[in-house]
Amino acid sequence: MNSRPVYYLGPQGSFTHAAAKQFLPRIMARAAASAPSEDSESTMLRPAEDVTQILEAVNAGQAFGVIAWENNVEGYVVPNIDGLIDAHNVVGCGRLSVAIEFDAFMLPDDASEPKEVTAHPHGLAQCRAFTRQLGLREVPAASNAAACRDITSGQIALGPRICGELYGLVTKQRGVQDYQGSRTDFLLLAPRDEARSLMLGDDKASTEYESVIAFIPLSTGAGVLAGLLDLLRDAGLNMTSFISRPIKGHDGTYSFIATIDAAPWQHDLKTALENIIRRGDWVKTLAVYARQERPDPPVTSWMLPDGGAGGHGSLATHETLTGLQAQFM
Amino acid sequence: MNSRPVYYLGPQGSFTHAAAKQFLPRIMARAAASAPSEDSESTMLRPAEDVTQILEAVNAGQAFGVIAWENNVEGYVVPNIDGLIDAHNVVGCGRLSVAIEFDAFMLPDDASEPKEVTAHPHGLAQCRAFTRQLGLREVPAASNAAACRDITSGQIALGPRICGELYGLVTKQRGVQDYQGSRTDFLLLAPRDEARSLMLGDDKASTEYESVIAFIPLSTGAGVLAGLLDLLRDAGLNMTSFISRPIKGHDGTYSFIATIDAAPWQHDLKTALENIIRRGDWVKTLAVYARQERPDPPVTSWMLPDGGAGGHGSLATHETLTGLQAQFM
Repeated sequence: MNSRPVYYLGPQGSFTHAAAKQFLPRIMARAAASAPSEDSESTMLRPAEDVTQILEAVNAGQAFGVIAWENNVEGYVVPNIDGLIDAHNVVGCGRLSVAIEFDAFMLPDDASEPKEVTAHPHGLAQCRAFTRQLGLREVPAASNAAACRDITSGQIALGPRICGELYGLVTKQRGVQDYQGSRTDFLLLAPRDEARSLMLGDDKASTEYESVIAFIPLSTGAGVLAGLLDLLRDAGLNMTSFISRPIKGHDGTYSFIATIDAAPWQHDLKTALENIIRRGDWVKTLAVYARQERPDPPVTSWMLPDGGAGGHGSLATHETLTGLQAQFM
Repeated sequence: MNSRPVYYLGPQGSFTHAAAKQFLPRIMARAAASAPSEDSESTMLRPAEDVTQILEAVNAGQAFGVIAWENNVEGYVVPNIDGLIDAHNVVGCGRLSVAIEFDAFMLPDDASEPKEVTAHPHGLAQCRAFTRQLGLREVPAASNAAACRDITSGQIALGPRICGELYGLVTKQRGVQDYQGSRTDFLLLAPRDEARSLMLGDDKASTEYESVIAFIPLSTGAGVLAGLLDLLRDAGLNMTSFISRPIKGHDGTYSFIATIDAAPWQHDLKTALENIIRRGDWVKTLAVYARQERPDPPVTSWMLPDGGAGGHGSLATHETLTGLQAQFM
C-alpha cells in the first residue's frame, strides 16, 4: 500500500514533476505512519503520458496523482476539471502553487558561445527578452524537459529549475522569464476513501478548509444558477471562484464548479449540499484541502479597468448611467 | 476608413487567420456601404505578433481585430478575456466557430516516403494516431503554420486547411486529428463607437442578441455574487456562461464574466445593468453579437458523470444523502 507510485504529467522535469516533488513528503509521512518503507523519491514519482492515465490509475486505487489545476494568467486547466468530474473514485486532497520560472541551462564543460535557445514554444514565448538580448535562434522542442534532455553544444535550454539536476546541466542564469509572477496551482489526487487523512493540516483542530464542488442543476428554467447560489449564500458560505462548464462538452448543458471556504463535513456546507440535493440537483466534491493564507485586498479604483460604467459609489451618478447607454447608441 | 486592416494572431495560416477570413465579407460589406474600396483580402488581413498588439490597434481606432475566445475542450482563452476587459475602446461585435481540424500536407512533387511529421507540439499531440499509423518521427515546430511554411522533402506538416493554399502544399489527407468535434469560437473586435453596425444580424428587426458582460462588485460581504445574479434573474435574463476571474491577476479580487441572451440596449438587460450600477458595482460590455442557433438538450442521467450525489429526482432519497456524507467519512 505504501509503495504505490505518485503519477505526474511527464516527461521528467515538467512543472508538474516539480509540484509532485513538493507533495511527496506528505505522502511518504502518511505511508510511514502505516508501515515503514524503503521507497525513495525516484521509485515513488512516475511520469505519465497524459492526464487520463493519471486519473485511471488513481481511480483504480493503484496510485496517487498530481495534476495542474489553475494558472493565474491562463486560468483553469479545463480538461483537468472535466477529467476530475468524471473520475468517480478520485478526489483532490492537497493544493500547492509552483512559480512558473525558467532557468537557462547549458551542457557542463560547454565553453562555446551559445547560438541557439531551445524549449517548448510556450517556454520560448515566455523568455523572449532573454533570447533577444543574447541574439539566439529559437529551436522549438516537444517539451521544456525534452529540450533540456536533448540539449547540444552551443545551445541554451530553458526549463524549470528541477531540470538542471535531472539532466546534469549547468545553470547559466536563473529566472529568465519575461513575466514575473506567473504561477500554477496543482492538486494532489487520491482514491476517495483514502483522501481524508491527506486533507488534514498540520494542526488538525484549527485547520481551515477549502473545497471544490461541482454542481449540475437538474431543475430547469430561468434563474437556476441564482437559486443555487442563494442556497450557498443563505448558508453563509464564502466562495472564491465560480465557473460554468458544459457537461462533457454537450453544448447547452451546464455544470458549475465552485471553490468554497469550508469542508463538506462542516455544518454550513453540509447543510447547503443537502438542500441542493433535495432540490434534485447533482453534486460532487472534487477536492478538499487545508486552506492557505491569501490576500484579501479591497477593490480600489486603480484596480478597475479603463472604461466601463459605475463603480463610483453606492449610487451611480446620472452621468454614469448615461455613459452606459451611450456605449451602444 | 474602409482600408483599415483586420489584425489576427499570426503567423499566416493560424486558426485565427481562418476565422478572420470568415469575418472579412461582413467587414468589407460595411466598408463598401460607406465608400467603395479596392481593398482585397490580402491587403485587409494582417498577422499580429501577439494579442496585445491587436487590442492596441483596435483601441486606437486604427484596425479591426480577431481573437480566440473559447474552445469547447480547453475552455476560455483567459488572457484574451483579461485583455478585452482592459481595452476600454474595444468591443466584440461578432462571434463564429472554427472546427479545429488538421490536414496533412506535403511538398508538391515530393514522391518520397514520408519519414517525419512536423507541427506545433499541440498539433502533434492532437494527431498522434495518424503519426503512429504511418510510423513517423515527430519534429516540433514553433507553430503549425511555421511547420507548413518550412516543410522539407520527406516531411508531412500538420495544419489548418488554410495552410495548403497559403504555402502551395499538396493535401495528403484531410482531418487527421484524433479527437473529432473540437472547435474554437472567435470574436470580431471593433472600436466601440463603430461596433454597433457590425453587431446587426441579416434581419435587423428579428435578430436575437447575445452579450458578454464583465461585472466587478464593489459592494462587499457574503453573498455579493448571489445578489448580483438575483438582479439578473429578477430581470428574467437567461445566462449561458458565467465565470469568475481575479482582476488583473490581483489575488483575492473578483470580476465576473457573464454571457447573456440579450443586448444591453434591450429593456430587460438595460434595466438590470442600471440596477447593478445603482448598487455601486462596475459594469462593462465586452461583446454583443447576433445569437446563433444552439442546442438545448435536456440533462438526462446518461450525461451525468459517475459518482456524486443527487440528481435522481426532485427529492433526493435517504440513500443519496447518506452517500454524500459517506464520501468523506
